[in-house]
Amino acid sequence: MKKIVTLGEVMLRLSPPGNQRFFQAQDLEMEFGGSEANVAAALAYWGMDVCHLTAFPDHELGWAAAGKLRKNGIDTRAISFIPGRMGIYFLEQGAMQRSSQIIYDRADSAFADFDGEGLDWDAILDGVSCFHWSGITPALSQKCANLTLVALQKANERGIRVSGDLNYRSNLWQYGKAPHQVMPQLMELTHVMIAGGRDFRQCLNEEFKSFSDTKKMAFDRFPKLEYLVKTDRISHNSSVNTLSASLYGRKKSHTSKSYELTHIVDRVGSGDAFAGGLIYGLLHLSPKEAIEFAMAAGVLKHSVPGDILYCSLQEIQELVAGEGNGKIKR
Amino acid sequence: MKKIVTLGEVMLRLSPPGNQRFFQAQDLEMEFGGSEANVAAALAYWGMDVCHLTAFPDHELGWAAAGKLRKNGIDTRAISFIPGRMGIYFLEQGAMQRSSQIIYDRADSAFADFDGEGLDWDAILDGVSCFHWSGITPALSQKCANLTLVALQKANERGIRVSGDLNYRSNLWQYGKAPHQVMPQLMELTHVMIAGGRDFRQCLNEEFKSFSDTKKMAFDRFPKLEYLVKTDRISHNSSVNTLSASLYGRKKSHTSKSYELTHIVDRVGSGDAFAGGLIYGLLHLSPKEAIEFAMAAGVLKHSVPGDILYCSLQEIQELVAGEGNGKIKR
Amino acid sequence: MKKIVTLGEVMLRLSPPGNQRFFQAQDLEMEFGGSEANVAAALAYWGMDVCHLTAFPDHELGWAAAGKLRKNGIDTRAISFIPGRMGIYFLEQGAMQRSSQIIYDRADSAFADFDGEGLDWDAILDGVSCFHWSGITPALSQKCANLTLVALQKANERGIRVSGDLNYRSNLWQYGKAPHQVMPQLMELTHVMIAGGRDFRQCLNEEFKSFSDTKKMAFDRFPKLEYLVKTDRISHNSSVNTLSASLYGRKKSHTSKSYELTHIVDRVGSGDAFAGGLIYGLLHLSPKEAIEFAMAAGVLKHSVPGDILYCSLQEIQELVAGEGNGKIKR
Amino acid sequence: MKKIVTLGEVMLRLSPPGNQRFFQAQDLEMEFGGSEANVAAALAYWGMDVCHLTAFPDHELGWAAAGKLRKNGIDTRAISFIPGRMGIYFLEQGAMQRSSQIIYDRADSAFADFDGEGLDWDAILDGVSCFHWSGITPALSQKCANLTLVALQKANERGIRVSGDLNYRSNLWQYGKAPHQVMPQLMELTHVMIAGGRDFRQCLNEEFKSFSDTKKMAFDRFPKLEYLVKTDRISHNSSVNTLSASLYGRKKSHTSKSYELTHIVDRVGSGDAFAGGLIYGLLHLSPKEAIEFAMAAGVLKHSVPGDILYCSLQEIQELVAGEGNGKIKR
Amino acid sequence: MKKIVTLGEVMLRLSPPGNQRFFQAQDLEMEFGGSEANVAAALAYWGMDVCHLTAFPDHELGWAAAGKLRKNGIDTRAISFIPGRMGIYFLEQGAMQRSSQIIYDRADSAFADFDGEGLDWDAILDGVSCFHWSGITPALSQKCANLTLVALQKANERGIRVSGDLNYRSNLWQYGKAPHQVMPQLMELTHVMIAGGRDFRQCLNEEFKSFSDTKKMAFDRFPKLEYLVKTDRISHNSSVNTLSASLYGRKKSHTSKSYELTHIVDRVGSGDAFAGGLIYGLLHLSPKEAIEFAMAAGVLKHSVPGDILYCSLQEIQELVAGEGNGKIKR
Amino acid sequence: MKKIVTLGEVMLRLSPPGNQRFFQAQDLEMEFGGSEANVAAALAYWGMDVCHLTAFPDHELGWAAAGKLRKNGIDTRAISFIPGRMGIYFLEQGAMQRSSQIIYDRADSAFADFDGEGLDWDAILDGVSCFHWSGITPALSQKCANLTLVALQKANERGIRVSGDLNYRSNLWQYGKAPHQVMPQLMELTHVMIAGGRDFRQCLNEEFKSFSDTKKMAFDRFPKLEYLVKTDRISHNSSVNTLSASLYGRKKSHTSKSYELTHIVDRVGSGDAFAGGLIYGLLHLSPKEAIEFAMAAGVLKHSVPGDILYCSLQEIQELVAGEGNGKIKR
Repeated sequence: MKKIVTLGEVMLRLSPPGNQRFFQAQDLEMEFGGSEANVAAALAYWGMDVCHLTAFPDHELGWAAAGKLRKNGIDTRAISFIPGRMGIYFLEQGAMQRSSQIIYDRADSAFADFDGEGLDWDAILDGVSCFHWSGITPALSQKCANLTLVALQKANERGIRVSGDLNYRSNLWQYGKAPHQVMPQLMELTHVMIAGGRDFRQCLNEEFKSFSDTKKMAFDRFPKLEYLVKTDRISHNSSVNTLSASLYGRKKSHTSKSYELTHIVDRVGSGDAFAGGLIYGLLHLSPKEAIEFAMAAGVLKHSVPGDILYCSLQEIQELVAGEGNGKIKR
Repeated sequence: MKKIVTLGEVMLRLSPPGNQRFFQAQDLEMEFGGSEANVAAALAYWGMDVCHLTAFPDHELGWAAAGKLRKNGIDTRAISFIPGRMGIYFLEQGAMQRSSQIIYDRADSAFADFDGEGLDWDAILDGVSCFHWSGITPALSQKCANLTLVALQKANERGIRVSGDLNYRSNLWQYGKAPHQVMPQLMELTHVMIAGGRDFRQCLNEEFKSFSDTKKMAFDRFPKLEYLVKTDRISHNSSVNTLSASLYGRKKSHTSKSYELTHIVDRVGSGDAFAGGLIYGLLHLSPKEAIEFAMAAGVLKHSVPGDILYCSLQEIQELVAGEGNGKIKR
Repeated sequence: MKKIVTLGEVMLRLSPPGNQRFFQAQDLEMEFGGSEANVAAALAYWGMDVCHLTAFPDHELGWAAAGKLRKNGIDTRAISFIPGRMGIYFLEQGAMQRSSQIIYDRADSAFADFDGEGLDWDAILDGVSCFHWSGITPALSQKCANLTLVALQKANERGIRVSGDLNYRSNLWQYGKAPHQVMPQLMELTHVMIAGGRDFRQCLNEEFKSFSDTKKMAFDRFPKLEYLVKTDRISHNSSVNTLSASLYGRKKSHTSKSYELTHIVDRVGSGDAFAGGLIYGLLHLSPKEAIEFAMAAGVLKHSVPGDILYCSLQEIQELVAGEGNGKIKR
Repeated sequence: MKKIVTLGEVMLRLSPPGNQRFFQAQDLEMEFGGSEANVAAALAYWGMDVCHLTAFPDHELGWAAAGKLRKNGIDTRAISFIPGRMGIYFLEQGAMQRSSQIIYDRADSAFADFDGEGLDWDAILDGVSCFHWSGITPALSQKCANLTLVALQKANERGIRVSGDLNYRSNLWQYGKAPHQVMPQLMELTHVMIAGGRDFRQCLNEEFKSFSDTKKMAFDRFPKLEYLVKTDRISHNSSVNTLSASLYGRKKSHTSKSYELTHIVDRVGSGDAFAGGLIYGLLHLSPKEAIEFAMAAGVLKHSVPGDILYCSLQEIQELVAGEGNGKIKR
Repeated sequence: MKKIVTLGEVMLRLSPPGNQRFFQAQDLEMEFGGSEANVAAALAYWGMDVCHLTAFPDHELGWAAAGKLRKNGIDTRAISFIPGRMGIYFLEQGAMQRSSQIIYDRADSAFADFDGEGLDWDAILDGVSCFHWSGITPALSQKCANLTLVALQKANERGIRVSGDLNYRSNLWQYGKAPHQVMPQLMELTHVMIAGGRDFRQCLNEEFKSFSDTKKMAFDRFPKLEYLVKTDRISHNSSVNTLSASLYGRKKSHTSKSYELTHIVDRVGSGDAFAGGLIYGLLHLSPKEAIEFAMAAGVLKHSVPGDILYCSLQEIQELVAGEGNGKIKR
Repeated sequence: MKKIVTLGEVMLRLSPPGNQRFFQAQDLEMEFGGSEANVAAALAYWGMDVCHLTAFPDHELGWAAAGKLRKNGIDTRAISFIPGRMGIYFLEQGAMQRSSQIIYDRADSAFADFDGEGLDWDAILDGVSCFHWSGITPALSQKCANLTLVALQKANERGIRVSGDLNYRSNLWQYGKAPHQVMPQLMELTHVMIAGGRDFRQCLNEEFKSFSDTKKMAFDRFPKLEYLVKTDRISHNSSVNTLSASLYGRKKSHTSKSYELTHIVDRVGSGDAFAGGLIYGLLHLSPKEAIEFAMAAGVLKHSVPGDILYCSLQEIQELVAGEGNGKIKR
C-alpha cells in the first residue's frame, strides 16, 4: 500500500441546499473541504495510506473537521490543534446559465497562522511515495509559504516524488508577496506539475506565446519536472461542460478521451479528484493509462455532491473502459 | 433611484419538494408569489424603489406574506389587511416529459374582495416612473377590475408610464364579465404591453391573420402604446425549452438572442422576471439593450427555485455579454 | 372496471437523498417496491381493481408496507402476515457517468418462505381479467417457484390471461435450481411475455442466433403465447437514455415511438410501469395503441421518484398524442 | 370483525415543522385529518372494518386525501369525488406557555356542498355495529346538517348504535342556523354522546346549574341515550396537561385513571382517539374497561404527531394495565 | 406609532438541527441575530416603527441579513454596506443536563470596523421615543465604542430616552480597553438600565456588598437613571428554568410573577425579548404593568426557535392575564 | 494515552425522525451503533486510543460503517471485511407514555459468521489497559461465543483488565445454547462486571434472594472479579426517568448521585456511555469518583441523539461537580 502525504488548509464548506441562492437559504449544508485534503480523500478511498498535514482550531468545529477527514480514511494523527478560527467558504451551486458562486471567509484562520511547529518530518515522511501540495497554501500567508518550502525540501531530500497543483487564485496573495516571489522555488522542487497557461503566467510573472512555448520553458527551467499536466474545460454553462486532459512528459505526451458532461451535480473538487487520480495513476499505471484514469476520476467527481470523490477504483476503471454507461448495478 | 408601483394578488404557493407528485408529498415548500409582485421583487433586487399594492387577510398567513415581500425589498406600507382568506396555488414541478401542474385555490380571497378603499393615490404615485399591472387582476372580480381601471387612470393623469402584461388565463374570468368587456379600456391606458397573439384574440374577442396584423392593429387602436413585447417559447419538454423575445416600437423592432434552456429548475415566474427586466431596461437602457436585458432576466429565472428572480444586475449583464458561462465565481 | 391480480415480493426500499452516495448518507428515503406490486400500483392509479398477493412480516414494517400498497389503491385483503423478516433493497441513484447501484438484502424474507397457505383462489380469481407474475418470484425459493406455478395453473384453469415479465436476475437463483429447470413450465402458462433475448437464453439455457430466431422459437414452443413484448433501451449514461418497445403478435408486430430521455429522475420501476401500461393497453386498446401506451407509461416513470408510476391515463394519452410537451397545466 | 361507519369532512392539514411559527415557516408538513375520519383511522388500526363517508374535490389533492385514508385502513369506496375545493386547516403547534393556533380555511369545500347524493345506504349500513358522527358536520352547511340527519335516521331504522361527539365549535355555524335549531333532533337519534357542559349549553341554548343537572336532563330528554361521556382536561400549558374521563350510564358511572401529560407532542386529535377508543371499548369490553381503554387511547395520541392515533391494541392495554412505563420494547 | 432606534451588530447564526452536537451535524440552520436587532424585531412585530443601525459586508450574505431584518419589519434604510466579513456565531442547543454552547467567530467583522460614517443623525433620530444599545457594542472595538458614545450623546441632546442592556461578556473586550474605561460614560447617558450585580461589578470594576447596595450606588452615581431592571433566572438545567424580573424606580419597585419554564425550545434572545417588552411597556403601560409585560415577553421567547420573539401583543397580554394556558386557539 | 480494545457487532440503525412511528415514516435517520463500539466511541472522544474488533460486509454499507467508526476516532485497522449482510436495527423513539420500540433484523450478519480468523492478537493487545466485551456477542452465534472466549483468554494471559457488560437479551440466544452454558466461563475471565440481578439469574440459570446475595455469590464464585457495577433506573415514562448507579468492590461500595431525567432525547446507548465512563474512571480516578463519572456520562447520553455519547471530559466533570446547570457556554 503506497503512502502519500498531503499538506493544506481544510475549510468548513457551507452551501444552500438544491438550487437555492444565499438570499433564499434557511439551512446550509455543512461539509469540509480543501484542495489537498480532497486529493487525500480520493486516494484514501482507493486504499492508499494517506496522511494529511494541516492545523485546526482546538474547538468542536476543528474536531468535527478532523473527524470528517478520519471518516474519509485519512490519517489525522499529525494534525495540529491550535488557537485561531476555522476558515470557511460559502458555496452557492449554479445551474443552467447561472454561475456557481463562492464567498471566501478564510482570513486569519488557524492554518494561515501555522508554521509547522511540532511536525516530526522524519516520522511523517517515512516510507512515503508522493508528497502533494497546491498553490493555494503559499498564497495564504508567509508562514504557509515557508511551511510549504520546508515540506518540499524535506521531501526532495528523501527522494519523494512531489506533485503540485499550481492552482493560481487571484483573490489570495494578500500578505505582501507576489506569486513570482514565492512560487518559482517551490516549482523547482516539484516533479509533477498540474498547471495551465494562466498559472504559469501568474506564478512566473511572464508572458508566453503559446502553451507549447510554456511547456518548453517549463521543462527547461525546472530540471526535476517529470510531467506537466493540464486539463481543458469548455464551460458551456453551469450544467454542461466538455472536459479532457493532457499529460506531457519530456519525451511523450498523452491526451485523454474527451467527455461531454451534462446534468452536472457539483463541479467543486473535480480538479482535486483529477489530481488524486493522477497521483494514483502515476504510482500504478503507465503514463497513458494514468491520464485516462485521472480524467475519469475528474469526470465522476461532477456526479458526487460535496468536495470529495467517493468512487471506487472499479467505477473509474469501468468509465475508462467505456463500460457501465449508466446501467443499474445490482 | 427610480420609483415603481405594482398592483396584484399575492398567493401562498405550496409545492411538493423535488420531483414529487402531490400524491407522494408529505411536506410542501411554502413560498409567496403573484405575477405583479414577482415583477416588483426583481426590480427591488436591482435597487429600485418599488411599492406593491395588494390586500392580505389580517392573520398570521397574511402577515407572513407581507414579511416575505418586505424581505424582497418591496415597500409594503400601502398594503391593506382585511377580512377574507389567502389565495393559494398548489404547484407540482414537472420533469422530462411530465408537465408541471397548478391547482388554483384562489376564489374568495381577500384581494378578490378588495376595492382599494383607503389607498392614498397621491402619496403612492408621487414621483413614480412606472406603474405595472397584469391581466390577472381584472380577471378576478368586478372589484379588482374596477380597482385596476382606477389605478391606470390615476397613473395616466400623472403622466406615469404604464406597463401591462395581458397574461390571459382562461380559467379565471368567473365573475360574469368576458375579457373583451373589460380589457380594452385598460389596454388604452397602457404604454408598454407584453402580449402574444392569443392574448390579443382573447382580450379583444377578435381574430387576426398573423402577429404582424395583430401588431399593426395594436398600434392603430391604442394610441398611447409605445412598445409591444412578445416572448417566443418552444417547450420541448418540462426540462428543455428554447426562448427568445421581441420588442416592437412604432418605428423599430428588436429581437433578442435565442437561448437554449436545459436542466430547467423552476419555470414559474420567468415571464414576470422578463417583465421586470423590461421595465428596468426601458428606464435605463436603449430599447435594443432593454429587450436583451429582459430576455436574460427571464432566462436566469429558470435557474432559481420559487416565483422570484434573485439575480443581480451584474449577473444579467454578464449573460447578455456572453461572459461567465458557468465558471465558478470566487 | 377490470379486475387484475398480481403476485410478488414487496421490499423496503432505502435510498440516500438526492445524488448522495451510501458513504455520505445520514438519512435514507423510505419507500416500498417490488416489480409486480409496482405493476399493480400503476393499474390501480388508472382505476383498475387490483389485488396483490404477497406475504409480510407481522410487525410494524410489514404493516407499513401493506398501508403503502393500500394508499396506492391496491386491495391488500389477501396479503398474509407471517413470521420472517422484511426484504430490503438499498438503492443509490446514479447521475451522469456514474451508475445507479443496488445492494439487495432480501434473503430469508417472509415472502421467500411463503407457500401460499390460506389463499382462497376461488375468491381471489373470481372475475379476474389478467394475472401478472415476474421471473423474480420463482428465483427466490422453491416455495416461491411452487407458488407461482400453482397460481398460473389456477389462472389458466379459469381462462384468465396471464402476463409475465421474465426479468432474469443473475444474482438471484440461490436455492439450488437453475432457471431452465423452473421457468419453461411457467412460460407455457403465460399469454403475454415481456422478455428480451438475454431473458430467453437464461431461462431456457439455450443460445439463439438472433432475436428474430428467438421470437420464432417462442411462438413455436409456447402455444398459448399471444404477445411477445420487448423494450429497447440505449443507456448513454445515468441521466440520458433512448427508449422504444416492440410488441410481436403471431401475425403482426408494432414498434412504438422512440423517446429521448434526458434529466432522468428515477429509472427504477420503469419496466414495471411499462408492464402495467401493456396490461392496461391490451385490455382496453388495439395492440398498436397498447404498445404506444405502455411505452409512454414507461417513459413517464423516469420522471417520478420512487418505484411507482403516479401518472393519470390522461397524462399518458397526451404523451402518446404528442401534446403537452412540458407546458404548465393550470 | 366489527363494522363501523363514520361521516365527516377530511381537511388538508398544513403545519410548520417543529416549534416554528407561521411567520418563520419555509415548509409545511402535510397531513389529512378530520374529527370523524380520525376516529375511523384509530378503529381501522385496531383491525375494525371501517367505512368513511365524505366528499373530496376530484383532483390530485382529493385523490391524495383518499389515498391517505386507504393507507390508514379505511374503506374509501363510498367516497364521492365532486367539484369544489379541499378544506384546509393551518396548524401551528404551541409549546410551553405559547398556545397552539389553528387558522381554518374550510369555507366552500366540496364536503360543505355535499348532499349525500349517490350514497347507497343499504349497502353502506349492511352489517354495521356503530355509526359515528360529530357536531362539526351539521355546523358546516344546511346540506351537511340534512345529510347528518338522514344518516342518523337510516342508522336508527336498522338498529345500529349511533355515537356522536357534540364538539361544539363557535366559529362554525355560519350558514344561518343556530345549533339549537339543528342539534336536538340529531341528539335524539344518538345512543352514545361525548359532550361536556358547554356543549350541552350551546347545542340546546339552555343553562344548567351543574354537570350533574346536565346529565340528568340528558337522560330524561333523550330516551335513546345509553351513555354520556365526558373528558376532563386541565391545560397547564401547551406542553403539560392533566387528563381523565367519565362514562355515565343510566345506572352506573365510571371514572378513568387520571394521567399527567408532560412533553406533549401533538394534542390535536386526542379527543378523536378517545372517541375511537370508546367505540372500540363499548363493542368489546365492559363499560368500566371501555372508559379506561378510551382514556388510554386519548393519552397515547398526545405522543404521536399528526391527527391520528397509530397505537396498537396491545400498547393501549399495557398503558391501562400500568405496564411498559417507557421501557424500550425490543 | 412610536419610533425607536437600535444600534448593534447582527451576526449569521448557524446551529445544528434538533439536539445534534456540532460533531454530528450535516446541516446548519441559518438565522441572523444580534442582541439589539432582536429587540428591534420584537418591537416591530408589535407594530412599532423601528430603525436599526448596523453595518454589513456588501455581498450576498450581508444582503440576506438585511433582507431578514426587513422581513421582521425593521427599517433597514440606514444600514451601511461596507467591506469586511460577516460576524458569525455557531450555536449548539443544549438539552437536559447538557448546556447550550456558542462558538463566536465575530472578529474583524464589517460592523467592528464601522465608525458610523455617513449616518444622518438628524434624520435617524427625528421623532424617536427611545434609543436602545447594549454593552456588546462598546466591547467589540474602539470604533464601536466611539460610535455608541456618539449615538448616546445625540440621543440625549434630543431628549430621547435611552435604554441600555449592560450584558457584560467576558470573552469580548479584546481591543485593549477594560470595561470600566468605557462603560461608565455610556451608563451616564442611559435612562433605563438592564443589569445584574455582575454587570455592575465588571463595568465599574468595583465590588458591592449586595444588590441593594448596587442599586443605591447606581441611582446615586447616574443621575439620569430612571429605571434599573434585573432578571432573576434559576437555571435548573437546559430544559428547565425559573424566571422572574424586577424593576426598580427611584421611588417604587415592582417584581413580576415568577414563571416555571419546562420544555425550553430556545433560550437565546430571551433577554432581548425581555428588553423589547420593557421598552414597549415603559412607552405604553405603567411601570408595574411594564415589568409584567416584559417578563411575559421574555418567557414566551423560550418557546420560539431562533433569536427573535414572534409573539403578538395579544399573546403576551394573555400570558400576563393568566389566560390561554395552552388551549388550542381556533 | 491509555489503549483499550473492544469487541462486538456494529449495526445499521434506522429510525423515523422526531416522534414519528414506523407507520408514518417517509425517511429514516441512518446511524451505526452497537453496544461495545458505543463504549469505544465514548472513550475515543475522551482521547483514549481505542481499537474496535468487528466484521463488516465488504460493500458500501460496511465501508460506511467503518467510516463512521473512524470519524468517532476509533482505530478500524483490525476490522475484517467478509461476505454476509449488515445487521440492522430499526428504532422508533418513544415519547411520553408511549414506549420506544426496536425491531431487530440482525440474523445472518457478517459478524455473526465471524470467527476471528486473521486477527493478530499480539499486535492488537500490545500495550492494552482494558478489554471490553458484552453479553450480546456470545448470544449471537457459536462462532461469536468462541471468539469472545478466545479474546478473553488472550487478554487474561497478557494481564489486561477485562470489563464486561452482561446485558442479557432474551430475544437473542437463538443458536441452540442457553446463556448458562456459555456465560459462566466468560464471567470467570472478567474483572469488572456490569450487571443487575436479572442478568445474573439468566446467565447462571439460578435464583437469588436479593441483590445482596447475588453480590456475595459473584465475589465468591468469580475470584478475578474486582468490581461489580449496577445501574438503577426508574422509568416513569419514555420522557422521564430517575437514574443512579452503584459500584461494589470486595471491600467498599459507592453509590452515585441520583439524577432526575426529564425531556429525554435518546436513551439508547446510555448504558454504553456509562460503561465507557466506568472504564475511563477506573483507569484514571478513584472508585468513588469513577462511579460518579460513569453515571454523569450515562446521564448526558440521554441528551444526545444517536447511539453515542459525544461529550467532553470537561462537560462530564462539570456535571459531576454540579456546575453548569444548563447555562449557555460562550
